[in-house]
Amino acid sequence: MTAAAKTALVVLAHPELRSFNGGLAEVAEATLRAMGYAVERSDLVQMGFDPVERGALYEHRADPERFDSQTEQRHAFERDSLSADVKAEIDKLRRADFLFVQFPVWWFSVPAVLKGWFDRVFVYGGIYTSTERYDRGRFKGKRALLAATTGGPKPTFGHNGRNGDIELLMWPMNMTLAYIGYAVLPHFVAYEVGGAIAYSGADAARARREGDKAALAERLRRLADTEPLRFNGWSDWDEQGRLKPGVEGHSHFMRAKP
Amino acid sequence: MTAAAKTALVVLAHPELRSFNGGLAEVAEATLRAMGYAVERSDLVQMGFDPVERGALYEHRADPERFDSQTEQRHAFERDSLSADVKAEIDKLRRADFLFVQFPVWWFSVPAVLKGWFDRVFVYGGIYTSTERYDRGRFKGKRALLAATTGGPKPTFGHNGRNGDIELLMWPMNMTLAYIGYAVLPHFVAYEVGGAIAYSGADAARARREGDKAALAERLRRLADTEPLRFNGWSDWDEQGRLKPGVEGHSHFMRAKP
Repeated sequence: MTAAAKTALVVLAHPELRSFNGGLAEVAEATLRAMGYAVERSDLVQMGFDPVERGALYEHRADPERFDSQTEQRHAFERDSLSADVKAEIDKLRRADFLFVQFPVWWFSVPAVLKGWFDRVFVYGGIYTSTERYDRGRFKGKRALLAATTGGPKPTFGHNGRNGDIELLMWPMNMTLAYIGYAVLPHFVAYEVGGAIAYSGADAARARREGDKAALAERLRRLADTEPLRFNGWSDWDEQGRLKPGVEGHSHFMRAKP
Repeated sequence: MTAAAKTALVVLAHPELRSFNGGLAEVAEATLRAMGYAVERSDLVQMGFDPVERGALYEHRADPERFDSQTEQRHAFERDSLSADVKAEIDKLRRADFLFVQFPVWWFSVPAVLKGWFDRVFVYGGIYTSTERYDRGRFKGKRALLAATTGGPKPTFGHNGRNGDIELLMWPMNMTLAYIGYAVLPHFVAYEVGGAIAYSGADAARARREGDKAALAERLRRLADTEPLRFNGWSDWDEQGRLKPGVEGHSHFMRAKP
């Protein structure tokens, strides 16, 4: 008997399939297939995914008068009355051993459609609970990788760059995945994507983009051997949710000096 | 002749008007009116604001084959063919001397509807250009204030808290406003909003929420006298977009040690 094939979910959050982001998602899908993964896709914009969490999306409300997202998410999950689009995404997440998310950095963060995928799909009471999160998260044992593109050149995203430190910019998104239990691999970033042709000439830009694609494929081929980002866990925190004295802040987020 | 009344725009990004976020937006509106401001509102979820930037929203495309957001934003702005909802928001932003934005922290960031308001309304070629941004931004001379609520208690958002440092979490949103030229006031945060009743008992929670509302009103009454957050500007950066040697990184974002 052979082991069941592993499954990967490739999420793309870009309005244009023929964009460089779309190309990187294709590279991810092809590389993962070549590695023996069964690959599912969620091309969020092309699917028409609705990212706006709100009461009208819940058919059977726990409280029809006053909408509270966590209350309604738990209620709907427990009664199996979540909307069909959210159920489908949750099913994909559960099937997937590996989650890959491709997006452009817009306004120092993810596009709205991806933020809303987190808001609507990562449901309270289903994907996480107050006791099942961080290193006790329900997705423990699964791996995830965020891949981003930026318009600005790499130095502008350095620790002293005018666009802000990419390590800190990526933290909220990496932390969102770590929160539900994923082992999050160090993010992949392709810089200067929008402006590459203008800055470097078309040939140089093309060569650069091919280099980015090859680098992403290589990162994916090593995904099982890559050391995940380190995040703190329950044993590191006191009852107030602060690091215990002497415990190192592992995340890339903590300032060295408060 | 009296001076023209100042105008404020109050943006709310919460699906429930009767939520505490909705209550804080009401406090902001009432306080600003009492200060003599003419107040406009953008209740993003209630307006049905569509936050997903994509080709279908551009009637006359510069490139009908391949959608690039910045290309189409500039093209549509220059030809006055932006969609009506975006035009209306831009008009409100231009009229407003003061911008107030109220939102709950969801997944370490803003709800998708607010992220998409940045993605779609802050158009390239109209709200900013490559030369008109940061301290040369088109909105220079205007002030803005972000007000957030969190579910988690305050210590979990400290520099060593398990939810991450709120000063760093707010940076991408504050920077988005600073990028287009706003003087951004230190953000207002009301903690432990969702869970307050469960944690503290209903009476204590109610008193706390009233305290938050009073504190926000006081912050708004002092808005003209409040020192804005300090962000670096063009004269601080070298040609690569890195801080020049010896220049202090003003933003709250830079890590003390890289």
